[in-house]
This record gives sequence, structure tokens and C-alpha cells, in this order.
Amino acid sequence: MNKNAFRSLSYGVYIISTLDGQRPTGCVANSVMQITSSPATIAVSMNHDNYTNSCIAESGVFAVSILSEESDPGLIGRFGFQSGKDVDKFEGLVSVEREGVQVIPDACAYIVCKVIDKMETSSHTVFLGEVIDADVLEKVEPMTYAYYHKVVKGKSPKNAPTYLPEEEKKTSWKCGLCGYEYVGEVPFEEVPEDYKCPICQQPKSVFIKK
Amino acid sequence: MNKNAFRSLSYGVYIISTLDGQRPTGCVANSVMQITSSPATIAVSMNHDNYTNSCIAESGVFAVSILSEESDPGLIGRFGFQSGKDVDKFEGLVSVEREGVQVIPDACAYIVCKVIDKMETSSHTVFLGEVIDADVLEKVEPMTYAYYHKVVKGKSPKNAPTYLPEEEKKTSWKCGLCGYEYVGEVPFEEVPEDYKCPICQQPKSVFIKK
Repeated sequence: MNKNAFRSLSYGVYIISTLDGQRPTGCVANSVMQITSSPATIAVSMNHDNYTNSCIAESGVFAVSILSEESDPGLIGRFGFQSGKDVDKFEGLVSVEREGVQVIPDACAYIVCKVIDKMETSSHTVFLGEVIDADVLEKVEPMTYAYYHKVVKGKSPKNAPTYLPEEEKKTSWKCGLCGYEYVGEVPFEEVPEDYKCPICQQPKSVFIKK
Repeated sequence: MNKNAFRSLSYGVYIISTLDGQRPTGCVANSVMQITSSPATIAVSMNHDNYTNSCIAESGVFAVSILSEESDPGLIGRFGFQSGKDVDKFEGLVSVEREGVQVIPDACAYIVCKVIDKMETSSHTVFLGEVIDADVLEKVEPMTYAYYHKVVKGKSPKNAPTYLPEEEKKTSWKCGLCGYEYVGEVPFEEVPEDYKCPICQQPKSVFIKK
């Protein structure tokens, strides 16, 4: 079995938000799909180890903020590279309440659901949610998981028609936490010492030479 | 609720194949996602009205052939615009057997699963399959649902950096069955009478002026 085959499945990039008691929390997910159209339902797959999983199970609600190619990549660091158990991921963030759940306005659309069923697996829960609110926020291209890996994380310059083969790449610097590859004009050694990873906000010292 | 929000969810384009007794059959699906990594499992959502649904339920196996940007668009017509109840969708098609299920070599990867669980909804079954075989076939970009709509169906020329606004479009001809928009150099009125829709093989007479 060649597990690389799974990499050809297509996904988006989503912030899944819910309630931890009265406090909003959430995480990044890729596995979201519409299941039925009337009533509209959405399935989200969520790892058991993810704090958001137990919060969805307890609150019975979740929202999907659909990131676009224009969304701040810092949202992925904020929601994807720390745990809602330890930090308030919504602190200092602009968000709006929809049906009791906070959604991210820096997205192309959002969908709010109440959980109506779930399927358990060895490591993940597939929550089935009936849509109680949804809207388009901006008419821009949704961010795909492939776009995030190839463009946002710096593996290819934006709008490049082809990606550089690995062997032609120069020495590059990569964030040790989220894998973001520095792509600025200034050589990485010369960027200011207070430089931070645009995705996960880690300091320059966390970057490693590839 | 603005259901247009659902259009921002990202999907791929897949041929889901299975067994109707000894005979291979299948259909087109977009809703496929990996759920767990060890053991690897994949979820597929399938409409109850789809003949493939009952065949998966009975045989307990399905394969996902992941279409690429290079795959023959005719596969989508063959598997998506007719029913396996009425026709043998594999007749005259090159396919290979993997773990008893036929997969499509004109794809970038394939995954074969045995059904281990399912979740029922009002109109669809979400099948959970444990992967029993998978491989990469060709290192090309997977076809996304957005690519199919914008490029394959002719709404935008391949590799166009931007899409033409509707108002700037000239009169165009569209397949009355699958919606493919004719994009050839020759005016549609002058194409040979034996012209067929490249997606669903319908004759020229089925095309309608937009």
C-alpha cells in the first residue's frame, strides 16, 4: 500500500469553532464535506486528541469558517499550532457571533451547525451537523489544502505557473514549528532579529536551514 | 441561510467503483475524505438514489480512482451522466483489477477499501472504508471540483490567470445534459454534424445556445 495516494485527495482549509462552556475555541481542519442538501448537513472529521473535539461533543454546535486565498495565514498558526486547552485562541481576534458561535470574518464564507449525529473511529470523530446558518462573506477563491502547502508555506511563489523542482532550489530557511519556508527578497540571515513566522508567530531563532 | 456558502467547500473529482455481483459498476463523487491514518480509513458520501450505493452496501468494497487535470473528461460523462442499473459503465473502458475491484488507470492515484462502518442520513450514506490497497499512478495535479467547473466544463480556458466576466462573454453553446460549454476555435454552427460532447458524448443537436 502506497499511502502517498492519499495526498491526491482534495481538501479546503477551515477554522472549526465551537464553545468551551461560554468561551469560544476552535482549531484548523481540512476534512469537511456537505452530506445532504435538504435539510443541509455537513460532516467534519476531528481527532480525539483535539480539544475542540470534546468541546463540540459537549456544546453540540460548531461553525466552519472557510479560509480563502486572501485570508491571513496567521489564522492557521493561531488555530492550528497551539491548543485551546492552554490558550484563548480568540484573544485579540476579530470575530463575529452567529447562532451563539464565533465565526471568522477574514474568510470567504461560514457555516454554523448543530450536531445531529456522529460516527466514531479509532482516532477521529465524524460529526454530522445540520446547518442552522450560513453566508458568503467575500467572493474570492477558497484556500485549498494544496494551495496552503504550495503557496502559503512558501514552496512556490504566488501565481507561479509551475513549481520549482527541488534540485533547483537554493538554500532555504524553514520554520521549525509549522514548516513555513521563508521566501523574502532579503537573505534570511539579514532579516531583522524581531522577524516572526507569518503563520505561527515563532521567532527567527526557530527557523532551520534546509 | 445563504446556501451559496456551501460552494466554497473544496472537493476533488473521483470515480467510485464497486461490484454489482460479478460486474463492475461505479459513479462520480466529490465527497471523499481520509478519516484516520493507522489503520487508514476513507469516508465516501453517496446518495441513496445512486445505484452504486446499494452495490457498495452489498459487496462491502469500493475503490476511489482520483481523477487528475489530465484525465479524460469523458470519464465524468461515462460514470456521472448515466446509471449503472441501465448500462455497463466499464464496457470498452481500460481498467485494472485491484483487490477484486476495477480501478481507472487514467487517474493520478487509487485507493481500495472494505466497508467497516457507515452513517445514514436522510438522503446519503457515509461509508467508512478501511484501505486495503492504494497507489500513486501519475504525478500530476489532482482535478478539483472547482477546476472541473471552471476549466473542464469550458467556463475558462486552461491556465487562464483570470476568468472572463459573464458580460464579456460571446454567445456560447452549452451541452443540454452535462452543461459543458463548447470552446473550440471553429464557430459551433460550423462544427461537423457528428460532433459529440467531450464529457457526456451527447450529439451536437443536444447543445443549446446560451
